[in-house]
Amino acid sequence: MKTITGVVQKETLELSEILAYHVSGEKVKVNGAVHVIRSMGDVAFVMLRKREGLLQCVWTEEETSFDIHLLREGDTVEVCGILSDETRAPHGIEVRIRSVKILSEPAAPLPLPVGKWKLNTSLEARLNMRPVALRNIRERAIFKVQEGICRGFRDFLNGQGFTEIHTPKLCAKGAEGGSNMFRLDYFSKKAVLAQSPQFYKQMMTGVFDRVYEVAPVFRAEKHSTSRHLNEYTSLDFEMGYIDGFEDIMGMETGFLQYTMKLLAEEYENELSILKIKLPETGMIPAVRFTDAKQQASERYGRPIRDPYDLEPEEEQLIGRYYKETCGSDFVFVTHYPAKKRPFYAMDDPEDPKYTLSFDLLFGGMEITTGGQRIHDYQMLLDKIAARNMETDGMESYLSAFKSGMMPHGGIGIGLERLTMKLIGAENVREATLFPRDLGRLEP
Amino acid sequence: MKTITGVVQKETLELSEILAYHVSGEKVKVNGAVHVIRSMGDVAFVMLRKREGLLQCVWTEEETSFDIHLLREGDTVEVCGILSDETRAPHGIEVRIRSVKILSEPAAPLPLPVGKWKLNTSLEARLNMRPVALRNIRERAIFKVQEGICRGFRDFLNGQGFTEIHTPKLCAKGAEGGSNMFRLDYFSKKAVLAQSPQFYKQMMTGVFDRVYEVAPVFRAEKHSTSRHLNEYTSLDFEMGYIDGFEDIMGMETGFLQYTMKLLAEEYENELSILKIKLPETGMIPAVRFTDAKQQASERYGRPIRDPYDLEPEEEQLIGRYYKETCGSDFVFVTHYPAKKRPFYAMDDPEDPKYTLSFDLLFGGMEITTGGQRIHDYQMLLDKIAARNMETDGMESYLSAFKSGMMPHGGIGIGLERLTMKLIGAENVREATLFPRDLGRLEP
Repeated sequence: MKTITGVVQKETLELSEILAYHVSGEKVKVNGAVHVIRSMGDVAFVMLRKREGLLQCVWTEEETSFDIHLLREGDTVEVCGILSDETRAPHGIEVRIRSVKILSEPAAPLPLPVGKWKLNTSLEARLNMRPVALRNIRERAIFKVQEGICRGFRDFLNGQGFTEIHTPKLCAKGAEGGSNMFRLDYFSKKAVLAQSPQFYKQMMTGVFDRVYEVAPVFRAEKHSTSRHLNEYTSLDFEMGYIDGFEDIMGMETGFLQYTMKLLAEEYENELSILKIKLPETGMIPAVRFTDAKQQASERYGRPIRDPYDLEPEEEQLIGRYYKETCGSDFVFVTHYPAKKRPFYAMDDPEDPKYTLSFDLLFGGMEITTGGQRIHDYQMLLDKIAARNMETDGMESYLSAFKSGMMPHGGIGIGLERLTMKLIGAENVREATLFPRDLGRLEP
Repeated sequence: MKTITGVVQKETLELSEILAYHVSGEKVKVNGAVHVIRSMGDVAFVMLRKREGLLQCVWTEEETSFDIHLLREGDTVEVCGILSDETRAPHGIEVRIRSVKILSEPAAPLPLPVGKWKLNTSLEARLNMRPVALRNIRERAIFKVQEGICRGFRDFLNGQGFTEIHTPKLCAKGAEGGSNMFRLDYFSKKAVLAQSPQFYKQMMTGVFDRVYEVAPVFRAEKHSTSRHLNEYTSLDFEMGYIDGFEDIMGMETGFLQYTMKLLAEEYENELSILKIKLPETGMIPAVRFTDAKQQASERYGRPIRDPYDLEPEEEQLIGRYYKETCGSDFVFVTHYPAKKRPFYAMDDPEDPKYTLSFDLLFGGMEITTGGQRIHDYQMLLDKIAARNMETDGMESYLSAFKSGMMPHGGIGIGLERLTMKLIGAENVREATLFPRDLGRLEP
């Protein structure tokens, strides 16, 4: 019998350990993937790709008996060598190679020059070769930033008294209804994939007051745009005991402020690789739907066609308006028309044609839909009836309200869209590890 | 135009704020759900359910003009009153009611006595009425503990240089193969729901060295047991540059150690409600599959029937053996027979009938499967061929190996099973917010 007592400490060093605890002249052991080899005859520079960044290793014939010609890009290796200051190398250090142990080798030359700074390949090709393309330093930095957003979301909400929940994705009925649901057989029953955790997070608000979830959602929409995915990661929260929907916008703004600070402090390296300038989040304008529409139409001379919804171009113009007039990358568009919002949206008591709901635009694109929900059982039943909807399959959802529910509301943020706008990408697929769209189910 | 500047500060206080910053005699404002009302004529005790626990409010006719008969269990309210020390009340405090504002009311009496300490209702009934049943203090405490496990998993792995990833649940092909996949139409294609993020986390190990994911997985197994779910939350990690599969077991042990400490420090209240005694994780025995089988058979006189797998009762006996002989609630069972492990499992070079893989048993039940994976492209192709499997649909997965992959391995932990064992439940559904099984697709 053996025993396992905890994390096995490694002799190999990570970049942050080297930079914090080691000095020029010390012997170090490191591992990594051979990212690029630049051979100049007597001397060769071997750039190792490590999880925290690149580390330059230098080979010279005098210093090692290792044959540099045995080394190929794509190998993974363990290198022993002498740490040395070198201002021209990444992080100002390099390792002068004494010995190399090859851990694994590729079976063929790499299909993409992942060692280049920027992959000059079409998005389509990069997505097709995603497992390899992501080894490029810039490509992978995007998903490190995405990690930071999720960390920010959870850490901030944990600090605000929220509880994390995990709700089912296999459901008997969709939250939003409509035709955009993936359907499947669930043993002898019919099931759909969750379009959102809406019903569940509302029910759980009755339990924990404040809840959040980070999980996939599924939309069988036949969109083929640069903004739509058929599966994406939704950052959802729902909070009880609100005094108005401003509380919800305030909480989202708090999340953005917290997360931008976290990114600035702990993801400096990735921000620099991607040349990201973090947006200001100190003060976000909130403007009524009808006003925003009017303002954008007047300023940019674009006629209003659909009075009940925002066309993508209108979102862009509203974003532009608030960038130009307030310097803000974000704008809350509030009081959406009731007919374009789901049944559970709270109507504005001052004018029930509108709702106490909002979208958050970032760089002229919707990244969030949120709002106050109906919490009164009878009001909910009345609204369902007024829409000629059935309550079949909603019994559990309704039971939460029948047993009493505090005033509440919440939001859903599209993680990939938020990432996309933050990194300044033109296509949401750039910010999705393995995107799913009308044509793409692989890799 | 309005502006939103961040989290809206509330006048209402949470329990932790009261306990930290307020003293007897102070006027306070609190909100909550009316959990229980105990009326004794002149005096009534109103127990408020708040997210951090229960708060006793005391009504007397002399102190307020509010008519206590207007209040019902299930109401949500805002209470103003005077904070007062009271050793017999939860947390040693109570609020002497001055005024009450009713925020919402239930439309009918509650279908379950959620205010009772323990719901004496069948599991089936509690699951049917889940949105209301979870308002019971003991029921909801389970999911606060579950939150703690997820926090522990992420925080620990973030500290160990792992990157969080989000991989698709709609896939063209399942990772494990076999018949236990949910199938659906994906536009003009055929799709399956992910049984595990196995392929994706391996591919991403080639990118980030160490990755993890907390996400739903789907198994169309026709099991109907107290241990199986058809959708569950999987805690997955995968790590590169391992020297052996002990590194993986060490990392999992590190996670358990970190998480038990986190629970002890920050979830004291829930542990106490649920009477949980946290298991020791300082040293976990690791024993070979064949030895464990033999030991349990000899000690408890149970003949070995299936030499290639562990029957549930054998897992229990192995768990019991190591509890009795080592005092350990956990045991790693290592070197599973190759024929019962997936193609990507690394065979033991000393005896390829076995693999460098393991299960972790907790309280005699498997909560984790893990192991070292094959990292060499040709070895992987050979194993696929030896099993008469097709590489169709695995091109992307294989491309990661073709382009070079370090030695690596990882694990998947069933979150609900780990929670179940930790709280000492007999059925995994107790530890699942909204379980999905052969008969249950709602709520």
